[in-house]
Amino acid sequence: ADEVRFEADESETNTFYLLFCAALVFLMQAGFALLSAGSVRMRSVKNILLKSVMDACFGGLVWYLIGFGFAYDKSEDGNAFIGGSGHNFALSGADDTTGKKDYGHDAVFFFFQYCFAAAAATITSGAVAERCTLVGYCAYVFAIVGFVYPTVVHWVWDEHGFLSAFNKDAMLTGMVDFAGSGVVHMTGGICAFTGAFIIRPRKGRFGELPEHAFAGQSASLQVLGTFLLWFGWYGFNPGSTLALHNYARDAARAAVTTTLSAATAATTGILLKRFAPGSCGGSPGVWDLGHTCNSLLGGLVSITAGCTTVEIWASVVIGFIGAFFYHGASCLMRRLKIDDPLDAFAVHGACGLWGCLAVGFFCTCDYSYTESGTACGVFYGGDGLLLATQIVGTVFITLWVGALSAILFSGLMAGGLLRISKEVEDAGLDNSKHGGAAYPDIATAIEEATERITPKRITSATDAAGA
Amino acid sequence: ADEVRFEADESETNTFYLLFCAALVFLMQAGFALLSAGSVRMRSVKNILLKSVMDACFGGLVWYLIGFGFAYDKSEDGNAFIGGSGHNFALSGADDTTGKKDYGHDAVFFFFQYCFAAAAATITSGAVAERCTLVGYCAYVFAIVGFVYPTVVHWVWDEHGFLSAFNKDAMLTGMVDFAGSGVVHMTGGICAFTGAFIIRPRKGRFGELPEHAFAGQSASLQVLGTFLLWFGWYGFNPGSTLALHNYARDAARAAVTTTLSAATAATTGILLKRFAPGSCGGSPGVWDLGHTCNSLLGGLVSITAGCTTVEIWASVVIGFIGAFFYHGASCLMRRLKIDDPLDAFAVHGACGLWGCLAVGFFCTCDYSYTESGTACGVFYGGDGLLLATQIVGTVFITLWVGALSAILFSGLMAGGLLRISKEVEDAGLDNSKHGGAAYPDIATAIEEATERITPKRITSATDAAGA
Amino acid sequence: ADEVRFEADESETNTFYLLFCAALVFLMQAGFALLSAGSVRMRSVKNILLKSVMDACFGGLVWYLIGFGFAYDKSEDGNAFIGGSGHNFALSGADDTTGKKDYGHDAVFFFFQYCFAAAAATITSGAVAERCTLVGYCAYVFAIVGFVYPTVVHWVWDEHGFLSAFNKDAMLTGMVDFAGSGVVHMTGGICAFTGAFIIRPRKGRFGELPEHAFAGQSASLQVLGTFLLWFGWYGFNPGSTLALHNYARDAARAAVTTTLSAATAATTGILLKRFAPGSCGGSPGVWDLGHTCNSLLGGLVSITAGCTTVEIWASVVIGFIGAFFYHGASCLMRRLKIDDPLDAFAVHGACGLWGCLAVGFFCTCDYSYTESGTACGVFYGGDGLLLATQIVGTVFITLWVGALSAILFSGLMAGGLLRISKEVEDAGLDNSKHGGAAYPDIATAIEEATERITPKRITSATDAAGA
Repeated sequence: ADEVRFEADESETNTFYLLFCAALVFLMQAGFALLSAGSVRMRSVKNILLKSVMDACFGGLVWYLIGFGFAYDKSEDGNAFIGGSGHNFALSGADDTTGKKDYGHDAVFFFFQYCFAAAAATITSGAVAERCTLVGYCAYVFAIVGFVYPTVVHWVWDEHGFLSAFNKDAMLTGMVDFAGSGVVHMTGGICAFTGAFIIRPRKGRFGELPEHAFAGQSASLQVLGTFLLWFGWYGFNPGSTLALHNYARDAARAAVTTTLSAATAATTGILLKRFAPGSCGGSPGVWDLGHTCNSLLGGLVSITAGCTTVEIWASVVIGFIGAFFYHGASCLMRRLKIDDPLDAFAVHGACGLWGCLAVGFFCTCDYSYTESGTACGVFYGGDGLLLATQIVGTVFITLWVGALSAILFSGLMAGGLLRISKEVEDAGLDNSKHGGAAYPDIATAIEEATERITPKRITSATDAAGA
Repeated sequence: ADEVRFEADESETNTFYLLFCAALVFLMQAGFALLSAGSVRMRSVKNILLKSVMDACFGGLVWYLIGFGFAYDKSEDGNAFIGGSGHNFALSGADDTTGKKDYGHDAVFFFFQYCFAAAAATITSGAVAERCTLVGYCAYVFAIVGFVYPTVVHWVWDEHGFLSAFNKDAMLTGMVDFAGSGVVHMTGGICAFTGAFIIRPRKGRFGELPEHAFAGQSASLQVLGTFLLWFGWYGFNPGSTLALHNYARDAARAAVTTTLSAATAATTGILLKRFAPGSCGGSPGVWDLGHTCNSLLGGLVSITAGCTTVEIWASVVIGFIGAFFYHGASCLMRRLKIDDPLDAFAVHGACGLWGCLAVGFFCTCDYSYTESGTACGVFYGGDGLLLATQIVGTVFITLWVGALSAILFSGLMAGGLLRISKEVEDAGLDNSKHGGAAYPDIATAIEEATERITPKRITSATDAAGA
Repeated sequence: ADEVRFEADESETNTFYLLFCAALVFLMQAGFALLSAGSVRMRSVKNILLKSVMDACFGGLVWYLIGFGFAYDKSEDGNAFIGGSGHNFALSGADDTTGKKDYGHDAVFFFFQYCFAAAAATITSGAVAERCTLVGYCAYVFAIVGFVYPTVVHWVWDEHGFLSAFNKDAMLTGMVDFAGSGVVHMTGGICAFTGAFIIRPRKGRFGELPEHAFAGQSASLQVLGTFLLWFGWYGFNPGSTLALHNYARDAARAAVTTTLSAATAATTGILLKRFAPGSCGGSPGVWDLGHTCNSLLGGLVSITAGCTTVEIWASVVIGFIGAFFYHGASCLMRRLKIDDPLDAFAVHGACGLWGCLAVGFFCTCDYSYTESGTACGVFYGGDGLLLATQIVGTVFITLWVGALSAILFSGLMAGGLLRISKEVEDAGLDNSKHGGAAYPDIATAIEEATERITPKRITSATDAAGA
C-alpha cells in the first residue's frame, strides 16, 4: 500500500513539476515576441508581434493535430525515423479516465512539448522580419511544427530514434542533446538561415541606407524579451528532465550551468564587441546593448545540450566560447550580406552547433546517459565516439532542416507567397496590412505638432514679409 | 506513522502547488495593466495603470477585510446566499500555530482567492477607461470586491451556495463553473457593460472623430499583456483544483484544454475579422492584431468553466465558437454605441456566458463533479438538467451583478463622482490628474524639434522674403 | 526503507520548491531593469538597461567565483565574521555525484542565493543613474557582490555569523531578518545613498531645470517593473524558508503578509502624496503613479524581515508605516539635494530599516526562530532584547556598508572612473557610449516630420511673400 502511495505522490509531483517548467517555457513566447518587436523598425512591429501570436496559436493547433504524433511514438515498435503509431495525433491515444492511473502525465508532457515546438518555430520569424508575408509565414509554421521539427525530435529524443541516446541501438553512441541545442535551436537557426537567404535583404539594407537606419525600435523591449527568455530557460533546461523524481539533482545542476553560461557569454560578448577591431565586427568604444543581449542568449543556447551532463565550471567555458560563436557567425552573415534582423542564425544556429559539439568535449562519464553504454567527452577520457556522434548528429540536422526549409522557402518565394510587395515594403507592413501603426499616438503627435506650429508661424512670416 | 507523514507531505505539496498557481494568477494583474495601457490613447496611460495598481492594492485590503468573509464560510451551517460566519473577515479565524496542523492551507487559499478577486475587479477598468474618475473607480472596487463578487463566489463555489456543484442540496444539479467563466469573467464583464453604458462614450467616440483616433497607443503592450494573461491562466485554470493531491490529472488536462481553446480562438478570430464583410464587423484585407489578441483571450475565458470537465478535442470546438461570441458581442457593442475601449464585455461577458453554456453541452460524465448526483452535458447523454442549471446560473449572475452595478454606477454618475469633467477630458487625464504625460520625453522631443527647427527656418524665409 | 524514500521525496520537493522561488526572484532582475528604464530620461535608457544586464551577468560570475564563498561556510568551525572554508568559492566543494545523495541541494541553494545577490547589487544602479560610467558601475558590482554583501549575509544568515539568529552564540538574541530587509535591501539602499551623494546630482537637477524635466520616460515600464518585482517577491519571501518540508505554513503566511503590506503601503502612499502639503513632499491634487509604485515597493521591503514572524494583521500596520518611511526619506533626499532618480535609498534603505525594527515590535513568540532562546517583539511580551538586537544589527550594516561603499565610490570618483564627462552628459549617455538612442525611430520620425513639412511650407510662404 505504501508503495502505491509513494508512486502516486511522486507521479503527482512530477506532473506539477512539468507544469511549472512548461509554463516558464511558454512565457518564452512573450520573450521572443518582445525581443523581435524591439529589434525591428517601428513600421513592422505589429506584423512581427502577430507572427509571434500565430506561432503560439496556429502552431499549437498544428502540433496538436500532426506534429506531436510524428515526434513521439507511444507504441512498442516505433520506427527510427518518424513517429506514427497514431496514439499522439490529436492526442487520440491519451487516456486518463481509467482509475486515475496516469496522474496527468500524457497531458502535461504534451503541453511541455508544445511549448518547445512553439519556441523552435518562432526563431525564424526574426530572420525574415519586416519582409515576409503572414501567409508565407503560416505556411512555414505548418511545415516546421507539423513535420520538420517533430522528425528531428523523433531522431534524437524518442526512444526509437536512430540518433537517440535513449535508444540502445542508436547510431554510434546516440546523440547527447539534453534540452535541445540541436533539436530546437539548430533546427530553428537553420530555417532562419535559409529563410533569410532566400527572401533576400530588406530594401536598402546593405549599401543604400546606413546601418543605423535598421536599428531596433526599442531597447527596452529587447532587454525585457531577453530577460523573459532567460527566465523561461529555467523551465527549458531543468524541465528537460521531464520528471522531478530521481532527477532533482540534474534539474538543480541545469539551473546553475544555465546561469553561468549566460553570465559568461554576456560578459564576454560586451568586451568582444567593444575591443574587437571594426574589421572583425567590433564597434570600438561602444558598449553595445543589443550585442550583449544576443551574446547572453547565445550562452543560453550553448549550454542547452549539455546543461545536465557537464560540470559546473565547464559551463563557464562553454559560455565563453559560445560568445565567440555568436560574434563570428553574426559577422559572417553581414559579410555574406544575408539580412537577419535578429541574428537568429548566429544565436540559435551557430551557438546551437557549438552546444552540441561542447558535449563531445565536456560531458562527464557520471552524468552521461547514453543507453548504448557510457560515452564521455574527450576531456573525460572519452574515445572520441561521443564527439563523433555529436558531429554526425549536427550534420544530419543541418542537412534535413536545410534541405526541407530551402525547398519550402524557395517554393513560396517562386509562388510569390513569401515576400511582401515593393508597395507594401515602401508603405510599411503595419500601415499596409495591419490597419495602422503600432504606436499611432506617436505618429499623430508628430504630425499634429508640426501642423499646429508651422502654419501659424508661416502665416506670421508671410505677414511680416508682406508688410 | 506513515499515514501521518504521507498526509503531511501531500499537504505541503498542495500548499506549494497553490502558491505557484496563485503567483501566476497574480501576474495577470500586470497582464491586465499592460493590455489596458496599450489599448487606450497615450493621454490616459498613467490613469489606467494607476487603476490597475489600485485594483491589486486597495482591492486587496477590501478582500482581506470584507470580501473573503462573504465569499467562503468556514462554519458547518453556512447559509446558501452569502458567507458570514466571521472566521474569514480579516482572516480572524485563520490559525496555523497549533501543532503546525494546517500546513498553510488557510493562508495560501486566501492568497489564491485574492488573486481571483483582483482579476474579477480589474476587468471593468478597461470598459470605463479614459473617462472614469479614480474616486469613482475605487468606489466600484470597494463594491465589487467587498460584496458583489464574493456573493457570486459563495453561490457557486462555497459548499453551502445554492448554485454550488459542491452542495448536494443545490438548485437543480448545481452549476459547473470550474475556474470561473461565470463567477469571475461574467461578473467582471457585466459590470463592464453597465459601467460603459452608464458612463457614456468618450468624447467624439461615435461620429465626430474617426475610428482610428481611438486606436490603442501601443501594440507591444497589448501583446505582452495578452501573453502575460495567457501565462497567468495556467495558474487560473489548473490551480482551480485548489490542490495537487488527487487532482494532478485534472490540472494537467486543464493546461491542455486552456492552450487549445486559446489557440483555436485566435486562429478563428484573425480569419473572422479579415474575411467577414465590413457590415459584420470585418476589416477586409486587414490582419488585425488587437482583434486576434482579444479572440485569444475570449478563447481563454470560454474554456475556463469547463477546463477540467470536457475532453481535449472539445476545447478546440469551444475555442472556435468562443471567437464568434467575442466577435459578435464586439460588433453589437459598436452598433449600440456603447464605448468599451478594451472590449471587456465582449471578451469576458459574452465568452464567459458561452463558457458556462458550453459545459452544459460538453461536460463528460467521468469528469463531472456535481455533488447532487452525476450530471453530464447533453452531448454525453445528459438529460439537459445540467444545461438548464448553467442557463439558470448565468441568469442569476447577470441579474445580480447587472442590477447592483447599475445601481452603483448610476448613483455615482448622478452624484457627479463617476465621469471626469469636460475640462479634464479635453486636457487629458494624465496631464490633469496625474502630474504629466506617461511618456514625457516623447512630448518634449516633439516640442523641442518643432521649436528648434521652425523659428530658424522661418527667420531665413522671412529674410529671403524681405530681400 | 520507507524513511529513506520519505526523505528522498521530501528532498526532491525541496529542490523543486527552491528552484521555483529562485526563478521568481531571478525575474526581479527584469523588474528592476524596467523600473529603472522607465524612471530615467529617454537619453539614458540603454545605459541603465545594460547595467541591469551586467548585474545579472558580471555579478553572477563574481558571486560564483568569490561572493558565495564569503557568504556561506560549509565547514564546522566557520568564523563569525566571514565565510572562508573554501568549499563555496567557485562551488569547488559542491558534490552531487556520490550516490545521488543531496538531490541538488547545493546547486539550487547557490542559484537562489545568486538571485538574491543580483537583487542586492542592482538597487544602487537606480541611485546613480544617468551619470555613472559603466566601468565604475562594474567596479561597484565587483565590490558589493564579491565582498560587501556576502559579509553581511554571513553575519546574519550563516549559522556562524555573530548577528545570526541561527547561531546560538550570537550577539544578544541574534538578528531576525527572515528574508532580508536588512541584509539585502538596507545593504543596497545604503550603497545607493553613498553613491548618489558622492557622484553628485545630474546636471541641472536642483535649480536650473524644472522638476518635470527629470520625469521618468515611461510610466508603463515603471508599472510593469513594479508588478514584476512584486511577483518576484513571492519567491523572495516565501522562498527564504529555503525548503518546503516543515515550512509550508511559513511560506503560505509569507505570501499573505507580503501581499497585505504591499497593498496597504500603496494605498497609504497615494493618499499621502495627494493630501500632504507641498512643504512635506505632497503634490496637492495629484494622484501620483510613480509615488504609489514606490510606496508599494516600500511596503514589500518593509515586510521582508518579518514576513514569516509577524501575524497577518501586523503586516497591514507594517505596510502602513512603511509608506511614511518611504515618503519621509524621499522628501529628505530632495531637501538634502541628493539626486536619487529611483528613490532607491528611500525604498530600500529607509523601508529596509523599518522592516528590521518592525520585527522588534511585532515578532510573535510562536513564529520567532532565534537559536539563543525565544525572543519576541515588545508587543508580544518581549523584554526589548530582540528590538535592541534589531537596532544593533542595522547599525552594523549601516556602518559596514556605508564605510566600504564611501571608500569605494570616493576612490572611483577621485580616479575619474565614476562619473561620466560633461561632454557625455550633454550629448546623452546612449548616444555617446551605446551607439545611439534607445528608441531610434522616434527620434528619426520627429526629425523627418519637421524636415519634410517645414521646407515645403517655407518655400510656399516665401513664394507667397515674393508674389
